Amino acid sequence: MSVLVTGIGELTTNSDATGDALVLDGERIAWVGSSRRAPAADEHVDVEGRAVLPGWVDSHTHLVFAGDRTAEFGARMAGQPYTAGGIAVTVDATRRATDEELSEVVRKHVAEALRQGTTFVETKTGYGLTVADEVRSARVAAEHADEVTFLGAHLVPPGADADTYVELVRGEMLDAVAPLVRWADVFCEEGAFGHDQAKAVLEAARAKGLGLRVHGNQLGEGPGVRLAVELGAASVDHCTYLSAADVDALASSGTVATLLPACDLSTRQALPPARALLDAGATVALASNCNPGSSYTSSMAFCVATAVLQMRMTVQEAVWAATAGGARALRRDDVGAIRPGARADLHVLDAPSITHLAYRPGVPLTHAVWRGGARVV
Amino acid sequence: MSVLVTGIGELTTNSDATGDALVLDGERIAWVGSSRRAPAADEHVDVEGRAVLPGWVDSHTHLVFAGDRTAEFGARMAGQPYTAGGIAVTVDATRRATDEELSEVVRKHVAEALRQGTTFVETKTGYGLTVADEVRSARVAAEHADEVTFLGAHLVPPGADADTYVELVRGEMLDAVAPLVRWADVFCEEGAFGHDQAKAVLEAARAKGLGLRVHGNQLGEGPGVRLAVELGAASVDHCTYLSAADVDALASSGTVATLLPACDLSTRQALPPARALLDAGATVALASNCNPGSSYTSSMAFCVATAVLQMRMTVQEAVWAATAGGARALRRDDVGAIRPGARADLHVLDAPSITHLAYRPGVPLTHAVWRGGARVV
Ligand SMILES: [Zn+2]
Ligand SMILES: [Zn+2]
Repeated sequence: MSVLVTGIGELTTNSDATGDALVLDGERIAWVGSSRRAPAADEHVDVEGRAVLPGWVDSHTHLVFAGDRTAEFGARMAGQPYTAGGIAVTVDATRRATDEELSEVVRKHVAEALRQGTTFVETKTGYGLTVADEVRSARVAAEHADEVTFLGAHLVPPGADADTYVELVRGEMLDAVAPLVRWADVFCEEGAFGHDQAKAVLEAARAKGLGLRVHGNQLGEGPGVRLAVELGAASVDHCTYLSAADVDALASSGTVATLLPACDLSTRQALPPARALLDAGATVALASNCNPGSSYTSSMAFCVATAVLQMRMTVQEAVWAATAGGARALRRDDVGAIRPGARADLHVLDAPSITHLAYRPGVPLTHAVWRGGARVV
Repeated sequence: MSVLVTGIGELTTNSDATGDALVLDGERIAWVGSSRRAPAADEHVDVEGRAVLPGWVDSHTHLVFAGDRTAEFGARMAGQPYTAGGIAVTVDATRRATDEELSEVVRKHVAEALRQGTTFVETKTGYGLTVADEVRSARVAAEHADEVTFLGAHLVPPGADADTYVELVRGEMLDAVAPLVRWADVFCEEGAFGHDQAKAVLEAARAKGLGLRVHGNQLGEGPGVRLAVELGAASVDHCTYLSAADVDALASSGTVATLLPACDLSTRQALPPARALLDAGATVALASNCNPGSSYTSSMAFCVATAVLQMRMTVQEAVWAATAGGARALRRDDVGAIRPGARADLHVLDAPSITHLAYRPGVPLTHAVWRGGARVV
């Protein structure tokens, strides 16, 4: 079935396509142009001057979890020391949850994100940390998310020896999970995995045919960015603390710098140096990092508003980063842009321009959403 | 008609009342307590473990405006110098608008706020700046808002002499507007009105029986706070830049410090020293400052999240400030709290606790709203 959308007040395509109208045909965008030359379609929707942009591409989430860390967050905000078990609390609850419970958590959060205009979601394993629990996490993730990443190297499980655990992750665990996922990721940070450990995991994953991603430079100028660029990873995520050499390395690489500002705010850290990255020529993505510990939001609009208001990104740069940037970080060319052939993922704002995403922070502006050609909001 | 609400997972009352159930009767709250002892009612709503709190009290908005300043905001975010006409652009458009157009703008924004849980709204004149336009603004404001403030002293109209304009505001304009409003306010800041001019306006307003408010200390450590405390104003709003003496003065006064963090972010300023104010014992309110120039959001949840994530307020302090604090700033004891006799203004979150307002920034969490006993969301 085809749908003609007209009355677009401002159309953000992230492509060469321009116009004030478009046609969806089945799961794809079939045509973009001027409403005066619009082809016929089965159905017609007039968006009455509203802004239309690609659906958000959220390239970094951790949705396969169980348990509740609200009290830990509240205590952190009240200035109490961070003594709760952190990620280990979630690992424990995730292992105890049934498959159905885990699946329901992922489904619920993907649906919540979709209601806010997120039409493409990556999510990760990483709260299982045994072969069986990581396999289960990958399977549950794949039921609901568009892309799945293996993050067995999220942290060393309590009580385990780090080097022994690295061998498990890059050996038996990788063997078991690899057929279920497209990506492998490592938390390369002091307290998690060092440069050599992270490299060992990522090289094994690459040998299995997986694409690479890195969590890096969240808590300090660690080796994560360097490693990601060295291995040609698709993205390095966080990038809160970057040396000048890190910025230069990203700018002259194909590795996307994925910024997670909601996480930095939720942990009361500094915000990442988006302006320096953009000015140097690096490719920047914005993502939610939705997870129950450090960033429990599914709101890409909040990330965009924060990037504009507090990270000196322009509205256009921030919206690109949260759509096409996410697609680039996931090496997808079928989402994050509006052009003939792309997936029919549209976000209609209850506002005349994308500027309102930062001009009106916190105001729910999602008016309509199409995902894969189906109207879902 | 009476309504029994049960299944409250967390009840924030800002009063001595406690429990997991309450009864609305007509426009008022009739009873709060344990569901096991709940009285009968005409209707029963089970909120299934959700958090319930008083509706937001937004004690500072400027909703009587016309015109569009989106491009000015976008340019500011792109780092271009602030050369657009600013407030004067809005004054010009407001004067040209019809009564119906102005009324529709106010109605639309009050409705938008209500959908997000704001059940009580103050709004101001201040884009008319002639006797006739200020009277018209006050009349339109009173159609839709709960409290109206006369802000003839918003700025000196382009081309006017400052002292002559002050005489107009405190004379003929005040005479004409006073019967329509409860409050008078002055923008006491370099570039707007100085201490003596502001004092002259406020003293004349007090003589007319109006309560006093001050816009102060937005752009620097100006005389606004000092003046507000000196005159016993109900609140001084902005408080972005405070000296130690300002903090002490507020702490030992009945003047509420109303913080407007969305405004500070939207103008890329520092955030106000909430922690210093609270630690000194000052009364703090949070408000949106919704206006098309410096803070075009109606989201009190965004203000609360920002206060917690970035101003070191606890969740409890921030929620109090955005409900009871706003009521205190407006000298109202019928709103901002849940207790028998208070106005039946309830906000039900799609979350088990108010902590989620900061834990899940940007996620629309308003599940249901009652205003004056009527379910509106
Ligand atoms: Zn992450
Ligand atoms: Zn104001």
